[in-house]
Amino acid sequence: MCHYQKFMSEIKYLQQLIHDKLLQVPFPSHPASLYDPIRYMLSIGGKRMRPLLVLMGCDLYKGNIDKAINPALAVEVFHNFTLLHDDIMDNAPVRRSKPTVHAKWNSNIAILSGDAMFVKAIQLLMQTDETKITALTEIFTATALEVCEGQQLDMDFESRTDVSLDDYLEMIQLKTAVLLGCSLKMGAIIAGASEEDCNYIYTAGCDLGIAFQLQDDLLDLYGDEQQFGKLPGGDVVANKKTYLLLKALELSNEKQKAEIVLIMQGGLTAEEKVQRMKTVFNELNIAELTIEKMEFYYKSAMDLIDALHVEPSRKQQLIQLSEGLKVRVT
Amino acid sequence: MCHYQKFMSEIKYLQQLIHDKLLQVPFPSHPASLYDPIRYMLSIGGKRMRPLLVLMGCDLYKGNIDKAINPALAVEVFHNFTLLHDDIMDNAPVRRSKPTVHAKWNSNIAILSGDAMFVKAIQLLMQTDETKITALTEIFTATALEVCEGQQLDMDFESRTDVSLDDYLEMIQLKTAVLLGCSLKMGAIIAGASEEDCNYIYTAGCDLGIAFQLQDDLLDLYGDEQQFGKLPGGDVVANKKTYLLLKALELSNEKQKAEIVLIMQGGLTAEEKVQRMKTVFNELNIAELTIEKMEFYYKSAMDLIDALHVEPSRKQQLIQLSEGLKVRVT
Repeated sequence: MCHYQKFMSEIKYLQQLIHDKLLQVPFPSHPASLYDPIRYMLSIGGKRMRPLLVLMGCDLYKGNIDKAINPALAVEVFHNFTLLHDDIMDNAPVRRSKPTVHAKWNSNIAILSGDAMFVKAIQLLMQTDETKITALTEIFTATALEVCEGQQLDMDFESRTDVSLDDYLEMIQLKTAVLLGCSLKMGAIIAGASEEDCNYIYTAGCDLGIAFQLQDDLLDLYGDEQQFGKLPGGDVVANKKTYLLLKALELSNEKQKAEIVLIMQGGLTAEEKVQRMKTVFNELNIAELTIEKMEFYYKSAMDLIDALHVEPSRKQQLIQLSEGLKVRVT
Repeated sequence: MCHYQKFMSEIKYLQQLIHDKLLQVPFPSHPASLYDPIRYMLSIGGKRMRPLLVLMGCDLYKGNIDKAINPALAVEVFHNFTLLHDDIMDNAPVRRSKPTVHAKWNSNIAILSGDAMFVKAIQLLMQTDETKITALTEIFTATALEVCEGQQLDMDFESRTDVSLDDYLEMIQLKTAVLLGCSLKMGAIIAGASEEDCNYIYTAGCDLGIAFQLQDDLLDLYGDEQQFGKLPGGDVVANKKTYLLLKALELSNEKQKAEIVLIMQGGLTAEEKVQRMKTVFNELNIAELTIEKMEFYYKSAMDLIDALHVEPSRKQQLIQLSEGLKVRVT
């Protein structure tokens, strides 16, 4: 078995562990209208990346995975709570090919089930080594507040016309990246890593988070339709302020800017919007520039992982996972 | 200064302390659209009964109020979070004579600000004696889940036609009463009270909570308009399943039941509804029966307070506060 296969089979084992334990999280049966939506939300899947990072952060420092599993589940339940409430706010009918909770039940039930999920996340977080609870709760709640801030900034962006690239990077740092950093750091805390290493691994997680959000932005337009199972350009059609669009606005000349504004103003079909926006983006080398930025954050994460005070062989799992998440843009 | 005045001035002091400390809870300025609604919600007042109970539970056992203040604020912030989300679900335009957050901003901002308040509540809860954090978080999160359950049951009741008095008592126990029990218990935990006393004071708080909810139900119809500043019978007009209505449905003969159903079916003016429902209630002695039930829970609370292992003189503050909350129905 080659190295890659070995790490991947370890990762598969951890993912299976998370899957099994998540199904075992006890929720009462009454009232069903509160707890059925939670069970539903947790059952519709996802890559379980965040709890995996908690376990890997712990394993990196030879920590006891048994002590990390409940905090890992806490992060996953919290993440699903934010998705549930985000879906209400975004009025999204579908998540992972299934009806969203507010679509399947209603908004009130979705609000309240989300609230209860957050409570459950805190309960799971506390079910670990008592000496670690304060440090875990500190990073977890600070991160939770930041995720709220990120979602609020994202909503604010919809009506703002002055969003800069820095604003955007701040938003994705808060909305997406910090929870990955938090996950790795929580694992490291549980394993008793030094404060310096906890901070390094936190930043590494954040940088990976930004890198993969930039990749998502890129794949939305440049991804392979067959591979991702959706029409490319959803963000363009929705006039979403992605890294691509903001970079294009920054670099465009007067004529290109006018074209972008015109595309966004409406009146064009979805297909026309995507086609014409792609032409502007291609003129400005937006795909290459986004990949460059993504590589910058990815390299920063790798440098930080390199600096961790752990024998290099133990780091391979995390490096392989990160590599595996990178998608070649066709 | 008579005893009553002495206790009341102590209570006023604690209320002022809560008021001052609540204003000092730090919230960032950015993003304003997330944190302004929180500051607004916390500024529009209320009796601050729950944090007061935390401090009084602590003081009862000669605990250090300084260690109880942050957990007390946690309960108040949590309570306001539930009100904020409840207001969205109930589509309520006004709270305490001010526009609700979702009316002043919008529903999405109200959902997200509420979420952030809940995170803040957990942060405040942790800012106390480290040895108490596990016990505090246990009762706090168990209670928080119950409050969600209570709100869900209350929403379920709207469309149900088979709500029993027991269902109703379960609902108000969860939605309202347990948080009062939790508040007193948290104070007792911080002061190092015995497990037995913690459980007694918890149940005492719950029983007081049910008593005062029954009183609220009663005052809605039988309260003095001038004293409460609103037209009596709002619950009747809204067809709300209160203790009064459910008791009346239980005791009514065929003719009275038909009259109740007719009143609720619509077609009458608000004034007619209130007048005719009051006539049925009066025939069935509903006010007296509600007062009786209320007194039952009140006495249960007093018996439990009596049983606490504390010198009787220290209990007077809590007893006086409870007495002060009782309203004579005119």
